[in-house]
Amino acid sequence: MLYFDHSATTPIDQTVQSLMSDLNQNLYGNPSSVYASGRKAKHAVEIARKQFADAINCQPNEIIFTGGGSEANNIVLWNMIHKKRKHVITSSIEHPAILLVLKELESLGVKHTIVPVDTNGYVNPDDIKENITSDTGLITIMMANNEVGTIEPIQEIADIANKHDILFHSDAIQVLGKLPLDVKRIDIDMMSFSAHKFYGPKGVGALFIKSGVIIKPMIIGGSQEKNIRAGTENVSGIAGLGLAAEIASNFEKENFSHLLELENYFKELIIDKHNDITFNGFDNNKLPGLVNLTIPNIPSDLLLINLDNDGISISNGSACSSGTISPSPVLKAMGLSDKSNLESVRISAGKYNTMDEVNKLVDSIHSSIVTIRKNT
Amino acid sequence: MLYFDHSATTPIDQTVQSLMSDLNQNLYGNPSSVYASGRKAKHAVEIARKQFADAINCQPNEIIFTGGGSEANNIVLWNMIHKKRKHVITSSIEHPAILLVLKELESLGVKHTIVPVDTNGYVNPDDIKENITSDTGLITIMMANNEVGTIEPIQEIADIANKHDILFHSDAIQVLGKLPLDVKRIDIDMMSFSAHKFYGPKGVGALFIKSGVIIKPMIIGGSQEKNIRAGTENVSGIAGLGLAAEIASNFEKENFSHLLELENYFKELIIDKHNDITFNGFDNNKLPGLVNLTIPNIPSDLLLINLDNDGISISNGSACSSGTISPSPVLKAMGLSDKSNLESVRISAGKYNTMDEVNKLVDSIHSSIVTIRKNT
Repeated sequence: MLYFDHSATTPIDQTVQSLMSDLNQNLYGNPSSVYASGRKAKHAVEIARKQFADAINCQPNEIIFTGGGSEANNIVLWNMIHKKRKHVITSSIEHPAILLVLKELESLGVKHTIVPVDTNGYVNPDDIKENITSDTGLITIMMANNEVGTIEPIQEIADIANKHDILFHSDAIQVLGKLPLDVKRIDIDMMSFSAHKFYGPKGVGALFIKSGVIIKPMIIGGSQEKNIRAGTENVSGIAGLGLAAEIASNFEKENFSHLLELENYFKELIIDKHNDITFNGFDNNKLPGLVNLTIPNIPSDLLLINLDNDGISISNGSACSSGTISPSPVLKAMGLSDKSNLESVRISAGKYNTMDEVNKLVDSIHSSIVTIRKNT
Repeated sequence: MLYFDHSATTPIDQTVQSLMSDLNQNLYGNPSSVYASGRKAKHAVEIARKQFADAINCQPNEIIFTGGGSEANNIVLWNMIHKKRKHVITSSIEHPAILLVLKELESLGVKHTIVPVDTNGYVNPDDIKENITSDTGLITIMMANNEVGTIEPIQEIADIANKHDILFHSDAIQVLGKLPLDVKRIDIDMMSFSAHKFYGPKGVGALFIKSGVIIKPMIIGGSQEKNIRAGTENVSGIAGLGLAAEIASNFEKENFSHLLELENYFKELIIDKHNDITFNGFDNNKLPGLVNLTIPNIPSDLLLINLDNDGISISNGSACSSGTISPSPVLKAMGLSDKSNLESVRISAGKYNTMDEVNKLVDSIHSSIVTIRKNT
């Protein structure tokens, strides 16, 4: 199997997997219990909190563990129903775990404005500035897009938000391990993460909440996670997230170079064979290893099936909802026609991919194109 | 280590642990992806859904996987903000993931009535009937209490709810594997579960939603779990939950006998040594293996520390919040004085406990009592 869909999910790092197995076997106390095995479980959670905090440069008490990235985003947005200033500014290329939440929260009095993006999927900070009203309580813009990899001007937006005393949240779910992350330097209020995007387990995420920012819980009950997220902690999952974040952060530079090398090699090879292919989004200022390309007259779903037959995994649209074949809202927001949209696929390389695998990927795409063209 | 706190959490069954390790190592596709490894991941989730549905006698499409039991309860209660009939009836001995949610939802227009319990922690169905108004949209009563084990009259309450066209939810988090569970026979609308209470992993739960009952999501985003719970599925955790439910359900009768035997043996031995001890709650009509006892003039926190020094784990109050030493709200609702409340501990046996371990537990409690009495 050749896996080139790391923006959808990643395999669990072997070290992380070993730690989780060990904890699942040997550490079953409830972190809320006062006896030894409870304290040990709590300690494992706190080690993970420190590891994660170090990975993004904040204090451990600024980290809340969640059941995933979507939950982290939802906590931030649901919190708006309790705020006085209920207007939210976001962009047209956010994840459904932002845009669909905001749509639902309209009935609860939370209003929102969606700023557009340019043809590269880039948000113009001036658009945000212009849409600020006296009622704006939150700006939420993703750090890097999941479909085209565009890195958004987070620092400029943070500066605008801070100047206007507006909370700023960023969905950074695609970023950890690929770009440097320093929440202190950005001076951002909240940031969402998901372990399974950086070689950690599925079903666990994290939310950075800057010290002093008050968030009401969505899942209410026990006093876990400083009363912001009730429920017995997923101890082994959280420990896995912490270690995965540490590894991802420590090897971020190497990973960046590796992914960029694979990306450049892929682009070179594929353009050499099919010079009518276009790449969507920026050439630079994007996540390394993520390539979104349009292949004229090759329906993406047919291409995916052909590659799947060769044991190769890539995606179209947003992988998280790729069961459907409707055009990608992200590419649509970038101005692609529906035709081109449905001829676009995403390739996202990972740390275990090799140059030789890229060769095989390109060969398979090439032969699939030939087959599809022959049959249509 | 002697573990007698299974109502707080359980060790993961070895078979479940093996399955999870295998999936974590070998199956990393995203269930939303269309290629082979995605389909395999989806298949693993659907196997678990079938296993869980079989364990409680419903259809697989009536099961939603969540990030835990607290989340399952929260989904049910948050849904009330969207309903016309916004009044909820509950009891005074529910978990904080019911009572604290309802308190918070007051500000969003969801009102509630808390019915009392008797000295055994038992809800009187007549109290529920009497509190029904034309605005009542939900009744939520736990199936069995987590601190004293009292089994509530769920069938009678279901009949009342159905007669009045009111949704009925039950937190059954303590029940699976200890009592027979048949949601069809009860004809209940919703029921919450948590894997780590029946030898499955932490961080994963399930919500039964009867076909036809419409629930709006709390975590919004992707279309996972029939649009009721967004977020990439915790594949290995869900698979672990499914297998754990199957095992728990298959061995429910054996487990019941085993736990009851341990309970009776424990009670006999401890009363023989300290005949001033009283047991809180019913003698029968309770979860097997769970004993809540008051030891006069022995502060529970001191006893816990002494037992912990002997490597024995038991709890006081609700284990999920046992970091605090305030009196248990459950025992308070049952009419215990604060003094007796703070002298009460919970012992909850599990499937791996033995008679010999009960001997050791009783010996340790006895010597702890002697030590504490000597020092006070």
